[in-house]
Amino acid sequence: MVKQVKFGAIGMGRMGLWHAKDLESRVPGAELVAVSDIDKSSAMRGSRELGVPWYQDYKKLLRLRDLDAVCVVTSTDTHAAISTEAARLGLDVFVEKPMATGRTDADQLERAVRRSGVKLQVGFMRRFDPAYAHAKRRIEKGDIGKPLIFKSTSRDPFPPPPWACDPKRGGGLQIEMHAHDYDLGRWFMGSEVNRVYTQGECLVFPEIKRKIPEFVDNTMITLSFRNKSIGVVEGSLNAKYGYDVRAEIYGSEGMVSVGAIQRVPVVVCTTRGANAETSYLGDDETPHFAQRFGAAYLAEKIHFVRTVREDLKATPSLEDGRAALEIGLAAFRSTNTGKPAEVSRKA
Amino acid sequence: MVKQVKFGAIGMGRMGLWHAKDLESRVPGAELVAVSDIDKSSAMRGSRELGVPWYQDYKKLLRLRDLDAVCVVTSTDTHAAISTEAARLGLDVFVEKPMATGRTDADQLERAVRRSGVKLQVGFMRRFDPAYAHAKRRIEKGDIGKPLIFKSTSRDPFPPPPWACDPKRGGGLQIEMHAHDYDLGRWFMGSEVNRVYTQGECLVFPEIKRKIPEFVDNTMITLSFRNKSIGVVEGSLNAKYGYDVRAEIYGSEGMVSVGAIQRVPVVVCTTRGANAETSYLGDDETPHFAQRFGAAYLAEKIHFVRTVREDLKATPSLEDGRAALEIGLAAFRSTNTGKPAEVSRKA
Amino acid sequence: MVKQVKFGAIGMGRMGLWHAKDLESRVPGAELVAVSDIDKSSAMRGSRELGVPWYQDYKKLLRLRDLDAVCVVTSTDTHAAISTEAARLGLDVFVEKPMATGRTDADQLERAVRRSGVKLQVGFMRRFDPAYAHAKRRIEKGDIGKPLIFKSTSRDPFPPPPWACDPKRGGGLQIEMHAHDYDLGRWFMGSEVNRVYTQGECLVFPEIKRKIPEFVDNTMITLSFRNKSIGVVEGSLNAKYGYDVRAEIYGSEGMVSVGAIQRVPVVVCTTRGANAETSYLGDDETPHFAQRFGAAYLAEKIHFVRTVREDLKATPSLEDGRAALEIGLAAFRSTNTGKPAEVSRKA
Amino acid sequence: MVKQVKFGAIGMGRMGLWHAKDLESRVPGAELVAVSDIDKSSAMRGSRELGVPWYQDYKKLLRLRDLDAVCVVTSTDTHAAISTEAARLGLDVFVEKPMATGRTDADQLERAVRRSGVKLQVGFMRRFDPAYAHAKRRIEKGDIGKPLIFKSTSRDPFPPPPWACDPKRGGGLQIEMHAHDYDLGRWFMGSEVNRVYTQGECLVFPEIKRKIPEFVDNTMITLSFRNKSIGVVEGSLNAKYGYDVRAEIYGSEGMVSVGAIQRVPVVVCTTRGANAETSYLGDDETPHFAQRFGAAYLAEKIHFVRTVREDLKATPSLEDGRAALEIGLAAFRSTNTGKPAEVSRKA
Repeated sequence: MVKQVKFGAIGMGRMGLWHAKDLESRVPGAELVAVSDIDKSSAMRGSRELGVPWYQDYKKLLRLRDLDAVCVVTSTDTHAAISTEAARLGLDVFVEKPMATGRTDADQLERAVRRSGVKLQVGFMRRFDPAYAHAKRRIEKGDIGKPLIFKSTSRDPFPPPPWACDPKRGGGLQIEMHAHDYDLGRWFMGSEVNRVYTQGECLVFPEIKRKIPEFVDNTMITLSFRNKSIGVVEGSLNAKYGYDVRAEIYGSEGMVSVGAIQRVPVVVCTTRGANAETSYLGDDETPHFAQRFGAAYLAEKIHFVRTVREDLKATPSLEDGRAALEIGLAAFRSTNTGKPAEVSRKA
Repeated sequence: MVKQVKFGAIGMGRMGLWHAKDLESRVPGAELVAVSDIDKSSAMRGSRELGVPWYQDYKKLLRLRDLDAVCVVTSTDTHAAISTEAARLGLDVFVEKPMATGRTDADQLERAVRRSGVKLQVGFMRRFDPAYAHAKRRIEKGDIGKPLIFKSTSRDPFPPPPWACDPKRGGGLQIEMHAHDYDLGRWFMGSEVNRVYTQGECLVFPEIKRKIPEFVDNTMITLSFRNKSIGVVEGSLNAKYGYDVRAEIYGSEGMVSVGAIQRVPVVVCTTRGANAETSYLGDDETPHFAQRFGAAYLAEKIHFVRTVREDLKATPSLEDGRAALEIGLAAFRSTNTGKPAEVSRKA
Repeated sequence: MVKQVKFGAIGMGRMGLWHAKDLESRVPGAELVAVSDIDKSSAMRGSRELGVPWYQDYKKLLRLRDLDAVCVVTSTDTHAAISTEAARLGLDVFVEKPMATGRTDADQLERAVRRSGVKLQVGFMRRFDPAYAHAKRRIEKGDIGKPLIFKSTSRDPFPPPPWACDPKRGGGLQIEMHAHDYDLGRWFMGSEVNRVYTQGECLVFPEIKRKIPEFVDNTMITLSFRNKSIGVVEGSLNAKYGYDVRAEIYGSEGMVSVGAIQRVPVVVCTTRGANAETSYLGDDETPHFAQRFGAAYLAEKIHFVRTVREDLKATPSLEDGRAALEIGLAAFRSTNTGKPAEVSRKA
Repeated sequence: MVKQVKFGAIGMGRMGLWHAKDLESRVPGAELVAVSDIDKSSAMRGSRELGVPWYQDYKKLLRLRDLDAVCVVTSTDTHAAISTEAARLGLDVFVEKPMATGRTDADQLERAVRRSGVKLQVGFMRRFDPAYAHAKRRIEKGDIGKPLIFKSTSRDPFPPPPWACDPKRGGGLQIEMHAHDYDLGRWFMGSEVNRVYTQGECLVFPEIKRKIPEFVDNTMITLSFRNKSIGVVEGSLNAKYGYDVRAEIYGSEGMVSVGAIQRVPVVVCTTRGANAETSYLGDDETPHFAQRFGAAYLAEKIHFVRTVREDLKATPSLEDGRAALEIGLAAFRSTNTGKPAEVSRKA
């Protein structure tokens, strides 16, 4: 086994801090050496909690001696630029999804990664969740025959911060949130998406739509796969009953259902019925997605460090990130035209 | 196929009327010809709803020309005497459980049935429930290996009428209610019960105990089977969340779980959690046990009529009824002595 | 209470016989007086099993003295013509869905019913299923807030007979099978469907497609409701694991999930995992849909007879049947054009 | 916040190593300084994996300068002696359950802890499992009224090593395994156990019984609580379908069910039914109990370190450990006499 992988963690928001804590203490072979955040108090808080130096300017962090890799968990619209710069400096990159929000940025990042030969892994952590991974194994074993229909649900208990609601900055549901679902679809079905049709509406938060005309809070996106199989991705920002992420894959010989509404295996029965605590609502310490996918967030970084140390092929890869982006861009176009949209293939 | 089986229905309480309605319209090969009830208004109501003559004195009903069989659903302490008289007159007998509440009555009934050669079936309808029957089939296929541990739960949402709470009249939990569980134990485990130990308490209804000192409303009864396997039967009269009847059988190679708390496959999720309507609470038209076991109550009578018409061996039989009674009597003794009690074998 | 409703049952296929048996013995206030089937042996079999006269020509049945109503369960493409004729003769009509397969037939039927003033109920029996009905009550109570998203699944274990696969005769998935789902969508969401988009493919049965070019065996249909809410209907003819009918409705304050994959509440655990018998596969006596929805098929006819005897407004109504047809026609157009299709409103 | 708590980990078997890894990297405020094991290769392996010195003789470890606490995970019959010695030296003690296997050892340990005033926590980790803890909170909120009936199941997939099967060394099911269940009973019901009745048999592993005559592999233990409530504890060593730990608590107003047979929220449906991966079977890296209770094992030590650093009252306490032991001793006596046994109270 080779040396420790020395990480700089860029972005000390709630999620960035979560990733950095994993790197600091729970990922074998990883060593956290510095953190940065454009917001000084966030950077200082990260430094204090993690016991490493901090920078306000990520560019300084990137130029630290002996740095091997970065963990990019900044605001979505800066993922690509920061990752590109890191790749050009020869650093391996773990970047939260989506890896880019537009085609230009994505092209630049791809060029940088290919020229430098660094590893880049996109944060599609659902692939590392025990339930999704188990479903994948069963499908690969042939237990449901040939996969034909893919259904994926991503429901958040409340809208993200304003910037992330803006398709131009954060990507919105179609590009940012559903990146996970597109990636799962390609992974489970073993085929690319050719065409999408989006029915998207702002049904619950008109006050956001007043500021961001393209904002939608509920989506229903049909996917047409190249091999003729069919998918649907459904999303919402008003799942007040709790973060609700599930999927079903139907095949020629059977089906597999992934996920559950119930959070802990406890049922309380009274005269009002049988009651179970529902899915993840989050609290001060642990946001809802980290409650549900804490093990997956850890496992994806363990996988990344192993990829770097053993010089394996990175996965979920730059190509996976690009594919999810292109599907998202088409889903966004379809929302606005009311017509099906073709998914672009790179030239 | 032979002629219709002409039934007299004795006992027009809620449950007796329920059985009679099945016989009148839903049991192939059955014909209801008369009803009786010691309470005149109940007998008249039955007659009106079913369109057949009524009698206050069941003895008159028993002596009707062309009667083939009776359906005995009277108060528990009269089951044996009425069934004995019917058997002596050569009538086939379907009798609700328990078929008797004491040894003397049971002996008389056995003698009458054996001498006359009539069919007698005891109303252990759980054997005919799709879920219990499915479990039995899986066990018989060997899917869980050799059955080793039997757990059975019977929880009622409220106490029965006062007479049924009195061990001397209705049998109480140990003799009346748990007759079902003892029968399931013998059926699933394929072995007789040798010894029982009862922990029984009055925990919720002291007002009943003041009138009936031997009354208990919660029970935990350990069963020792002849083949060394082990059982536990648990019961309650205060399941306010709904009628709750379930079982688990553990074997050398696996286990089977029967029953569910949830009533209809509907889950409602709100900020208060995931809520399912719980088990059967009953309503004016359909008591809780008929909601849960309506199909089983019908199936057991279809089976009885087939037994009569095709001259098959009756089952659940007189011997099954007697075995459940003896276990119940031992469970009752154990409650009072605080010690394990041996289950008597008939001489 | 008024007189018995005298029924003629038209169509003695498996499903027609099933309905007729309910009418003969289980529907209070109903009396079966005759049956008919274009196939002589089917008509004779129905006569024999039900103990009433038979006719090969339904027109003779329609002209029986004293007939009050008909139960039309013939091949789909004859529903409208037979119902129209019955209505013109002043008979109340219970007709299996879809009530018509084309606009012309539907128009004729509507005119006949309106002129004669008879009752017409369409066989959308899912509304009468305890689980769907329970969900509706919870939604009406406001438990999930305003309904926003509707998801409905209808998966059959195998394709119907060839004639029913042909959109021109039986309606195909888009018109025939999904009529149930469209009706549920309108019922749960309280809004009409404006526009649909269908992704439909023949993925499993190319041998059927060779004969019927428009045949699809898997569908994903997006619904846009007038009130902006969104739906998706998904269907398949290759659910080998069992008939699988479920729905989810998401609202501003919560969600409700209807249905279950598990058939009886029995779980068998072995070293191969926890196994439950899946949904309804049907057998010689009881087809899969009757296993799942037996109680609903009975309840809808009890409701119809009550509607007739108490002179209530029929429901699910002619208008409900028409609405489902129009959505189905649009879904069919969208399949072929690859574009969203508007749902026509009647002039 | 005060200084780090410096731990010595005694016992480097599979479970001891597991605990030590938690202390080394995942328990805030804990610092692992040394390990020991009577088996030299186990001690060396622990040292290598954890990066701290090793000792074969735990007495040397106990005398290390600056040691604050020990984590005792040795063979069961040595728990009390090692813990006693540590307490006498002023070290805080985290000890796996049962804290002792006999009354003499338990008395000595109690005296040592009381004289020295150190903290001692017993490893009843189920109290820290999210599901059990959630049930406790719901009961404390009054959601099920007054708790009346307690049912607890502990089923292992295979027997422990021979020494642990011997009641004189490891405690057997009645003393060692069910210590968890007794502790949960006291915790949930808020009452002490007065009397027990055990039905225990060797049903599956006669080859073990040939060597250890008192060995049983299946148990059914009735608990009588001081407040008249009733419990049953059921256990097995042949749950081939997977480690199966569940509980139900019934109260005057409702019930709560804890635990599930299903391991990950994935269901695979094929023509053979709906299949879910069952409970924890363990693998080379993670034994079955660590798969199920990994989070609880971590949480109990986080709790212990907090107790030490903030000078709180230790819990689950010496008294909890003693109570579980006395119940276990009575359960063992009852097995052999076939009669109920009183639970001793300390003089």
